[in-house]
Amino acid sequence: MESLNTSAQINAPQAAILLFGATGDLARRKLYPALYQLYRQKKLHPSFFVFGMARRPMDDETYRALVAESLENPDEQFLRHCYYQSLDVERLEDYERLQRRLLDLEASAGTAGNRLFYLSIAPDHFEPLAHHLKESGLVETAGFRRLVIEKPFGYDLPSAEKLNRALCQVFQESEIFRIDHYLGKTMVQNIEVIRFANSIFEPIWNNRYIAGIQVTASESIGVEERAGYYDRFGALRDMVQNHLLQMVAMVAMEPPSRLETEAIRDEKVKVLNALRVLSGAEIDHALVRGQYVRGIVDGEIRRAYREEDGVDPRSTTETYVAAKIYVDNFRFAHVPFFVRTGKRLRQKITEIVVQFKDVPWNLYVKKSGRLEPNRLIIRIQPDEGIHLWLNTKQGGDRLRIAPVDMEVSRFTGIGFNSPEAYELLLYDALIGDSTNFTRWDEVAASWAWIDPIAKRFKEKGEDGLKFYPAGSMGPELADLLLSKEGLHWWEGTQA
Amino acid sequence: MESLNTSAQINAPQAAILLFGATGDLARRKLYPALYQLYRQKKLHPSFFVFGMARRPMDDETYRALVAESLENPDEQFLRHCYYQSLDVERLEDYERLQRRLLDLEASAGTAGNRLFYLSIAPDHFEPLAHHLKESGLVETAGFRRLVIEKPFGYDLPSAEKLNRALCQVFQESEIFRIDHYLGKTMVQNIEVIRFANSIFEPIWNNRYIAGIQVTASESIGVEERAGYYDRFGALRDMVQNHLLQMVAMVAMEPPSRLETEAIRDEKVKVLNALRVLSGAEIDHALVRGQYVRGIVDGEIRRAYREEDGVDPRSTTETYVAAKIYVDNFRFAHVPFFVRTGKRLRQKITEIVVQFKDVPWNLYVKKSGRLEPNRLIIRIQPDEGIHLWLNTKQGGDRLRIAPVDMEVSRFTGIGFNSPEAYELLLYDALIGDSTNFTRWDEVAASWAWIDPIAKRFKEKGEDGLKFYPAGSMGPELADLLLSKEGLHWWEGTQA
Repeated sequence: MESLNTSAQINAPQAAILLFGATGDLARRKLYPALYQLYRQKKLHPSFFVFGMARRPMDDETYRALVAESLENPDEQFLRHCYYQSLDVERLEDYERLQRRLLDLEASAGTAGNRLFYLSIAPDHFEPLAHHLKESGLVETAGFRRLVIEKPFGYDLPSAEKLNRALCQVFQESEIFRIDHYLGKTMVQNIEVIRFANSIFEPIWNNRYIAGIQVTASESIGVEERAGYYDRFGALRDMVQNHLLQMVAMVAMEPPSRLETEAIRDEKVKVLNALRVLSGAEIDHALVRGQYVRGIVDGEIRRAYREEDGVDPRSTTETYVAAKIYVDNFRFAHVPFFVRTGKRLRQKITEIVVQFKDVPWNLYVKKSGRLEPNRLIIRIQPDEGIHLWLNTKQGGDRLRIAPVDMEVSRFTGIGFNSPEAYELLLYDALIGDSTNFTRWDEVAASWAWIDPIAKRFKEKGEDGLKFYPAGSMGPELADLLLSKEGLHWWEGTQA
Repeated sequence: MESLNTSAQINAPQAAILLFGATGDLARRKLYPALYQLYRQKKLHPSFFVFGMARRPMDDETYRALVAESLENPDEQFLRHCYYQSLDVERLEDYERLQRRLLDLEASAGTAGNRLFYLSIAPDHFEPLAHHLKESGLVETAGFRRLVIEKPFGYDLPSAEKLNRALCQVFQESEIFRIDHYLGKTMVQNIEVIRFANSIFEPIWNNRYIAGIQVTASESIGVEERAGYYDRFGALRDMVQNHLLQMVAMVAMEPPSRLETEAIRDEKVKVLNALRVLSGAEIDHALVRGQYVRGIVDGEIRRAYREEDGVDPRSTTETYVAAKIYVDNFRFAHVPFFVRTGKRLRQKITEIVVQFKDVPWNLYVKKSGRLEPNRLIIRIQPDEGIHLWLNTKQGGDRLRIAPVDMEVSRFTGIGFNSPEAYELLLYDALIGDSTNFTRWDEVAASWAWIDPIAKRFKEKGEDGLKFYPAGSMGPELADLLLSKEGLHWWEGTQA
């Protein structure tokens, strides 16, 4: 999709937002606040309603109270747009009942039959739900029909293919919006803008000038309520397959010929297909797999992963993974991409560090010793910002060259003031812009790269699993991954 | 000179600092405070003294009171290092008397015969003074002898050559320190550091990526006490020949093979020799010459230049000049350098703007229209800083790409905290580092470029002289200079 004018705002069409998993954590923490923000900013069409579904029986008023609980200063007007029906995902009758009620509501609300199906439910339910949407006739509608689906999209490539086949019997690829909520983050969207709206970076954005790229997504939290899911998936499937590889793709992609959804996705999938596939011992050398043990995070003692409720006490699931990845194409050949993600790490930080090569000849070596390399840092969270580390001469000292941090961030008074990712993504789905959602071939390419690694992890079990204390920055072996290349991790300096 | 280790500080040797023009404005505003700062920072050798000279008779105590007046919190210890003798520049006997007293003082102070002659006097006196220094035997000393000489170094190339010949009968070129106080400014010194200590700029620092370069040195003050001098010299000779061309040279020079004084100066002189020499009508097209008339600066009505005390009421001297300059070499061929300087302008600002070319293809044209070009700004005064204007996507608005100012400056809490230029330059002269002083061939090359322009200005007189109101940014014709190239002046945004 391409916007047809330079006006900043596209009006969302009328729509019924059909939310499966209406009582769940994501709905309450993210989706209702996001919808409410869109409503308050008048980004929703006046003819809209939210139709919540979950197993639990509840009348509309109770549901509205539940929605209101998740909002700051809820507005009665907004809540009147909310309806509810209990639904057992496996029961076709429930869908048929939904269809009947929906027709009435659509007629009175004037939503023109536009239906946005939002699946905020356990992945096991995706396939039966799609099947029932079709059987019940819910997807036969006079308006648009779109499916928004949360991660995980499969457990590996075969299961993802199976799921996709099931969805494609009901929806066209263009109607499927696979959420990767990192793509809804302003600073992730800025990767493209920084690269393609600024002339100074393109000439140096390649293997002649870049020494290495680091993508970090560290969390200080543990597995929280998701232990069952997490212990099955682990960090590799939960974070690397989607968020981290998407960021790698955005850093490494060629400029698209146009800013159109499919042109951008075409470039991203080219990168994902160019990832050097690893096998056997290569995996052991290029990846570090960790699991947290007891330690101190933010001054509080945290138990080991294996002690968490819902986790197998002998689990060998990785809660940390670091990988050295190569993108085998002309632009980035031989440039290592280091990605890492983990739970119970020292700080919550998501950022991309583009480390440029050293100056070809250090004129200042006698005066200042080794110079720090230039780094462009895109800080995605918690403090959105762009940082560029340069070397300058500080006035007070005649000789010393010292690195300084040029930045744009809330610390410099120019915050990005970004809305929540879900606000952007819900709006995009409503206007039918799928640029910031993952296309099937991107998902398939990612799994194709992940599968041999996940298989190797499983085979090796505890062999090669590194334990790291909660509150550290992960296993020390992850430092070796970089020091072998003469590099080291750049740790975020602002918390 | 090259520093031989990575230690930040070189110890200054013992020295007698012989100051001609000891009661003048520069001495009082800049030199005494600079010497005092060096003293307080222990950057002067304990064996030093300042020997002031001027026409006025005065004893040491009176002189010390005069020095003390120019200092904040003067220290009695420091003042005891100050001595005075009246001197008529034209009278040999005065120099002989000086020599006798000096030998005594040197013996008691232990300055090892090191003599730094500092000429802060009217340029007419330079030649007779040099002559008498020789005749009186003052330059025959057991230690070093160095001459620090203030601008102007000549009125044109022939007079500069004549002056240089006179000096060279007394001093070696390596003993002559021609002050261009802009070279003592930390941010001017940072031009070299930004370029050569950062790998990201070198690949784009050429005519393939740079659209144009702007060097602005605007002043809000008028001619003050210097009307007689100024009316004879004008902005071209007073500012462009030295400060602005030096900045152009530093922006355009090739990396030196080593950070040694002569290697750096060799590169600068190559640029000055590559300046495209203009003649006749070319000058009329490439230069704008202005003179201020009555107007309002900072809320106060200011009289016209021709109304200033000491200025010829029919003067055609330019108080403003803007020029389009080409550096005809491989790196910068076809890149216009726009320089401008003037008095009674809206704001006091000295900065260099490197404007990069537009992105090769604007993907965002439909969404955001034209994108602003990237600019690297080196702000020399009043607010030292480095700014890099990038385009980013602001979070609050789905589509809009907007320019942001990445900066390092006191506004971001990372000030350069620079000492005064004279502090750096006096120290450099004492340790014998002439990197930040201009070599004779640089001066000669600058005058060679200036002379035909100055000649043309004189020939044309009032014809072509543009009058601009005090408090404006100069004649409108200066905008045309850029708009012909599809460019415009970037006005500093912080005051």
